[in-house]
Amino acid sequence: MGNTDDTTDNYNFDGGAAAAREGHRVAIPPPQPFIHSFKNTLKETFFPDDPLRQFKNQPPRKKLKLGLQYIFPILEWAPRYSINFFKADLIAGITIASLAIPQGISYAKLANLPPILGLYSSFVPPLVYAVMGSSRDLAVGTVAVGSLLTASMLGSVVNTMENQKLYIHLAFTATFFAGLFEAALGIFRLGFIVDFLSHATIVGFMGGAATVVSLQQLKGILGLDHFTHATDVISVMRSIFTQTHKWRWESAVLGCVFLFYLLLSRYFSKKKPRLFWISAIAPLTSVILGSLLVYLTHAEKHGVQVIGHLKKGINPPSIMDLNFDSTYLTTAIKTGIVTGVISLAEGIAVGRSFAMFKNYHIDGNKEMIAFGMMNIVGSCTSCYLTTGPFSRSAVNFNAGCKTAVSNIVMALAVMITLLFLTPLFHYTPLVVLSSIIIAAMLGLIDYEAAIHLWHVDKFDFVVCMSAYIGVVFASIQIGLVLAVGLSILRLLLFVARPKTVLLGNIPDSKDYRNVDQYKNAHHVPGILILEIDAPIYFANTNYLRERISRWIDDEEDRIRLSGETGLQYVIIDLSAVGNIDTSGISMLDEVKKIIDRRGLKLALANPCAEVIKKLNKSKFLETIGQEWIFLTVGEAVGACNYMLQTSKPKAASDSSEKYSNNV
Amino acid sequence: MGNTDDTTDNYNFDGGAAAAREGHRVAIPPPQPFIHSFKNTLKETFFPDDPLRQFKNQPPRKKLKLGLQYIFPILEWAPRYSINFFKADLIAGITIASLAIPQGISYAKLANLPPILGLYSSFVPPLVYAVMGSSRDLAVGTVAVGSLLTASMLGSVVNTMENQKLYIHLAFTATFFAGLFEAALGIFRLGFIVDFLSHATIVGFMGGAATVVSLQQLKGILGLDHFTHATDVISVMRSIFTQTHKWRWESAVLGCVFLFYLLLSRYFSKKKPRLFWISAIAPLTSVILGSLLVYLTHAEKHGVQVIGHLKKGINPPSIMDLNFDSTYLTTAIKTGIVTGVISLAEGIAVGRSFAMFKNYHIDGNKEMIAFGMMNIVGSCTSCYLTTGPFSRSAVNFNAGCKTAVSNIVMALAVMITLLFLTPLFHYTPLVVLSSIIIAAMLGLIDYEAAIHLWHVDKFDFVVCMSAYIGVVFASIQIGLVLAVGLSILRLLLFVARPKTVLLGNIPDSKDYRNVDQYKNAHHVPGILILEIDAPIYFANTNYLRERISRWIDDEEDRIRLSGETGLQYVIIDLSAVGNIDTSGISMLDEVKKIIDRRGLKLALANPCAEVIKKLNKSKFLETIGQEWIFLTVGEAVGACNYMLQTSKPKAASDSSEKYSNNV
Repeated sequence: MGNTDDTTDNYNFDGGAAAAREGHRVAIPPPQPFIHSFKNTLKETFFPDDPLRQFKNQPPRKKLKLGLQYIFPILEWAPRYSINFFKADLIAGITIASLAIPQGISYAKLANLPPILGLYSSFVPPLVYAVMGSSRDLAVGTVAVGSLLTASMLGSVVNTMENQKLYIHLAFTATFFAGLFEAALGIFRLGFIVDFLSHATIVGFMGGAATVVSLQQLKGILGLDHFTHATDVISVMRSIFTQTHKWRWESAVLGCVFLFYLLLSRYFSKKKPRLFWISAIAPLTSVILGSLLVYLTHAEKHGVQVIGHLKKGINPPSIMDLNFDSTYLTTAIKTGIVTGVISLAEGIAVGRSFAMFKNYHIDGNKEMIAFGMMNIVGSCTSCYLTTGPFSRSAVNFNAGCKTAVSNIVMALAVMITLLFLTPLFHYTPLVVLSSIIIAAMLGLIDYEAAIHLWHVDKFDFVVCMSAYIGVVFASIQIGLVLAVGLSILRLLLFVARPKTVLLGNIPDSKDYRNVDQYKNAHHVPGILILEIDAPIYFANTNYLRERISRWIDDEEDRIRLSGETGLQYVIIDLSAVGNIDTSGISMLDEVKKIIDRRGLKLALANPCAEVIKKLNKSKFLETIGQEWIFLTVGEAVGACNYMLQTSKPKAASDSSEKYSNNV
Repeated sequence: MGNTDDTTDNYNFDGGAAAAREGHRVAIPPPQPFIHSFKNTLKETFFPDDPLRQFKNQPPRKKLKLGLQYIFPILEWAPRYSINFFKADLIAGITIASLAIPQGISYAKLANLPPILGLYSSFVPPLVYAVMGSSRDLAVGTVAVGSLLTASMLGSVVNTMENQKLYIHLAFTATFFAGLFEAALGIFRLGFIVDFLSHATIVGFMGGAATVVSLQQLKGILGLDHFTHATDVISVMRSIFTQTHKWRWESAVLGCVFLFYLLLSRYFSKKKPRLFWISAIAPLTSVILGSLLVYLTHAEKHGVQVIGHLKKGINPPSIMDLNFDSTYLTTAIKTGIVTGVISLAEGIAVGRSFAMFKNYHIDGNKEMIAFGMMNIVGSCTSCYLTTGPFSRSAVNFNAGCKTAVSNIVMALAVMITLLFLTPLFHYTPLVVLSSIIIAAMLGLIDYEAAIHLWHVDKFDFVVCMSAYIGVVFASIQIGLVLAVGLSILRLLLFVARPKTVLLGNIPDSKDYRNVDQYKNAHHVPGILILEIDAPIYFANTNYLRERISRWIDDEEDRIRLSGETGLQYVIIDLSAVGNIDTSGISMLDEVKKIIDRRGLKLALANPCAEVIKKLNKSKFLETIGQEWIFLTVGEAVGACNYMLQTSKPKAASDSSEKYSNNV
């Protein structure tokens, strides 16, 4: 790089850019050993949060302690646990238990599983999470979307009615694979896969799933026996309106009354956050009232379906029930992966939001391991898919929980229910469960968020709507694939069709900015200044070459009409070009040839470290000449102006000679 | 936007940034009607080259003429065609015909098709291309990779030996679909799909395909009758070495002699470009010499296989042979799409390279339509897949072709051959054809390009090698999918793991640059300046939030050790952030909260038009306060320094109050 100094000294700038002479040149970072930069890339890709930071410079004993605390966060906070914390956690735990019991039963029905499994799933997984999870606010439990997905994916292979045992075993197996997949993502630090579910995707997907789940509940509300297994709105509507003669008004009235009560209680809780408990205990109140009503009026004999017998006792082991039979293995794995990712996305997002409120840190990959273990253990103890649902966690947070002990309290409350109170649910009408689900689902349809997306970002709105429409009119999986596909397409399009913008001088400064954005930015005669707003990769090289040619054409047309000084220089600002690949370098080479052939000169401004390194290695730097690469657009314009004034070159081919001869 | 002026007037900068007071503020571009920006996006995505430019402001008659010339470029250049052009084209045409005839026969054998189809394919398609194509240097013909792909993809469904008729019909059908797909890509302006085959992918893929094709030729060289249908190196090697007793030394000797002759002639032509014709006619010479040798020695009776009878006469129609039977439809469509894309990629790249040399323009989408029509017409006239092979086009170029008339001359030469000369090929030994293929293929293994990739861009090298290894050890399709998948993964990783860099002040300037790149850039006390090098999209929001927190942690650690002024301000330079989505805005919101909570203040510098527009629409601008958004990092640092000197705020929560009170 010794010749760099010579070339810089070779030329003079006009007065304004005098400082440039002192060596404002673009630095080429010193070459790094390959292994070093490779390690760095790996670290940024897989360990961006530097999880081993705290282990640095510690004695081995301390390292072991930190390691155990890393895997079991309970070891970290348990020693500091106080009686005041416990008071708060006790209240929060009992509150979420009162929500968990009816919701657990309802969602298990939604998954076509025996209701008791919903209670089992609120006992073991919360205990596992309390030991391994790092969120203080997450309340563990089953979720509607996961339940419905399980029902629709497994239901397409096994008939629930005819072969219930197999169906239940497959549900456990799918849960096992979901846990395995979640834990693997966390262990292999691949948590960023969940990031590909954008906010817009989740809004649309959740709204669609909530719509679909609510529609499914019309079965319970209308007291229908037979119902479609499909989830799309058309099948559901057909199923409902072909059976109008079977609608049961007793059931429908009861359902509407409870739904109204639930929505009203939520409305009050929303208005006065201190009254959160009204909404929190409303489902349990509904269950109690509904059960009493049925018990007293014997409505179960007049067309109101009830839960019926629930087995007493805590979770039986189910490890022997896991079914790895090759006939069903792919279905189980597919169901596990899909439901696992969806429930991870919800759980992680919920954990992060509350951590943000209370200003503590959540390690996404660690959380995934916790979720994974929770589901693996769950699948061996008669539980199906669990995660950290938003509604329950919000109640937990509002109830003032301090640590994961609230989950332990909830688990104990559910345990007591399982041991002693199951007979009480015998007369609980199914229609009340349907009302509870609908009330919970209506809260998930976030149309305000969709409107916000439309105002801020049209493409996000399209992604959101395609997720919604896909879920509602086709199936949950199709909606999800559609939305994720579109989101990724957007990333690819960003690279494939980068913005190129025309820069002009901001008055009273040496800064150059987009002339469309800054109306006062003015054009520099004889010089075309372009900025490329994306990395130069194979996917956009052809586009950029065409586009740059078109900018030059347009500029020459404009000059011809206005009779200004002819175009002499093209400056490309590379500030926003984060990286370049070999196809990109070939493209720059070709652009230089095109520009040369038109009798113009190409200058580059502000290439970043990665780009200048590659330009140097590929010898493009020699082709263009290092003296044509500037630190800022301002300095490039200064140099070009100087040459325009002194040498007035006619053709660029000899301008550089004149130029170096002149100085 | 009325309040913008007030906020700007609200504060004073230090002397150095005095100019800033005059209103260097970040402009928010005026809102555009949605339909307008949507049209603009569509135009940039599908019509970046503005193909309708020439139609603007023209009378209807002229528009019709231009339209016809657009579809049939021959109408444009034919009127200007001169006798001198014809002389050049005649020589070039005869030269490429002498290459086309032996290559056509060889590649048809490679595709397991009757050799005569190779000649047919060099007759009709070049005529179609001459009328519709816009390249002046492209020579049309069949290619080795396409032939092999056809053989392996169709061969896996239909046995060539047992059901040759069906196999031939499927080859026509696949060609038809390839043409349809190519034309559709061009018509719907989706040509950029081909851009996703990066330079690195093509180098690796071509090298791999050449290796595989050469290995396949060992069948011909060793005179084997039975050979594996698989293309991977392991199957081929097993096939060769399990039949060592069947090797025929006569055939092998003949093959090696011709191969040596062909390679020698290429070596001379490479050394002296004027002697290009030596290499160009070498294949035909080999065929003539080989045929003579066999004819004179009756070697065909001693184990040297010959072509045998070739039917006289030009292409019979094959439109009735297209097979749309549902049993084979998916195979035909799949083969068509894969071979179509591959041959497009080669043809377009070849056309572009030569157009670059001679400084004329090639419209990729128009070329695709020409290739598509050529294959559709071809499939109806007993031709299989054709494109613009590199080797033949290079010979055409070196022979001094001027227009597509050289293709017409070649077609006529092939026609004469078909009508009168086919009996001459009766005694042509297959081993000569194998030598011709190997010689052509060895030129495609561009190991120097691979070494260049390793030096310039390690990731491109990985892509290249995975394409090569995939093709050689698994199959052509797997290699291709692997390489394209990796290339796209790289684009996604660029967005998912953007670079964030620390900026420092370049001495004697107001510019701030990466401190790793510019070793002389120095840190500004009390201020952390970060730059984000990619758009802020859902895929990177979690990463960026963690990473920014880590930068702040690291900076505070450093300050604690060095005893410098405490950190007060975090400036994020958004120059390189080309776009942001709603997830990104939420992330900025969270980052602001994190920074506030740590008692620091966040400032943003140089958001581009798209970003500031969205920040404004989403009300983030109100959250952060427009006075915290600066045109340049320099101005942001100026403002922060001013505040550091005057108010010395302890916590950021009150610093902004103090700050506005102070001024």
